Amino acid sequence: MVKQSAPDTARRSEKSRRAIYDAALALVGEVGYPKTTIEGIAARAGVGKQTIYRWWSSKADVLLEAFLDLSGQAGEGREQYVIPDTGDLAADLKGVLRATVDELRDPRFETPSRALAAEGLVNEELGREFVAKLLEPSLQLYVQRLRSAQDAGAVRPDIDPRIALELFVSPLAQRWLQHTGPISYAYTDTLVDYALYGLAPR
Amino acid sequence: MVKQSAPDTARRSEKSRRAIYDAALALVGEVGYPKTTIEGIAARAGVGKQTIYRWWSSKADVLLEAFLDLSGQAGEGREQYVIPDTGDLAADLKGVLRATVDELRDPRFETPSRALAAEGLVNEELGREFVAKLLEPSLQLYVQRLRSAQDAGAVRPDIDPRIALELFVSPLAQRWLQHTGPISYAYTDTLVDYALYGLAPR
Repeated sequence: MVKQSAPDTARRSEKSRRAIYDAALALVGEVGYPKTTIEGIAARAGVGKQTIYRWWSSKADVLLEAFLDLSGQAGEGREQYVIPDTGDLAADLKGVLRATVDELRDPRFETPSRALAAEGLVNEELGREFVAKLLEPSLQLYVQRLRSAQDAGAVRPDIDPRIALELFVSPLAQRWLQHTGPISYAYTDTLVDYALYGLAPR
Repeated sequence: MVKQSAPDTARRSEKSRRAIYDAALALVGEVGYPKTTIEGIAARAGVGKQTIYRWWSSKADVLLEAFLDLSGQAGEGREQYVIPDTGDLAADLKGVLRATVDELRDPRFETPSRALAAEGLVNEELGREFVAKLLEPSLQLYVQRLRSAQDAGAVRPDIDPRIALELFVSPLAQRWLQHTGPISYAYTDTLVDYALYGLAPR
């Protein structure tokens, strides 16, 4: 019997971890959060449930990390964790929102996200945890970009960036969440123009 | 035995109808949409389930009417079905949004609405029906008010009112739905000011 080398163990762990993420996301999309269990995730991932409990303390924790991993994957190949600052605020915001439109339309992201958002509506504790760990950090990227626009004189200095970003982020979120209207690049471009220049004549 | 007069029958029907609405709203708030049944509503309302089937064909229909009735109740004592046009667009929008803040904080409205919104996220057919019959009609009131503002020169003529209203309605909806931030009159007043005058310096 050959003793397994450290890199092999790491590779096997990484493979299990990925299988667990995939199983958790697939399951929550199919049966919803309440019926998703550690046992179900373990069975689907082909691991023992003690493997899961070694790394995570609850299904909420597994799902949280699975989503963090998914967002990381979704961002591959494009600028991440910061909104570009080309000096053209409208163009920068439109670019990020177009990438968000792509993500919201990707079924790998759409189905589990919708299941989790639905649970967050009625399970306030879970909702607040996922907002704090998944949603708010991405909103803070807009806060940073708007602050830099304030420094450059492109946004009024008295504006609260945390509220301002909601003028273009929340409409997209509501259309996606509640099916209140179609989602397109033209739509998000329009939101940015309306938010920056206002509805009243200039 | 005294034959019941027509007004008595109408009164009894109205009382049953009200008991059924109350039962449906309470139940969906407590157990969620999937576990709400016609049988459960009937038992809680103290009527036979055939009474419910005489008036409605499904639990979705009962709930839809119960919500329409609830919105009507919530609006009692204030201007309804139209947004006032005092000539001051900012003030008119702020007034309606403040009333919405009150409604969103009313537990009679909050609990069942949240349960139904959660189901609408994952049950697209139900979500679309409730948006079409409950949410969109109230959004169309903003469309009308913004059109009249365009006629008066207070909103640019090239603005699409159906998108424009989302700049102040959707942020409030998202904060309420997803607990992404606190809700207050100061917050909704700010949304209206940002939307009308824009984030960029004038």
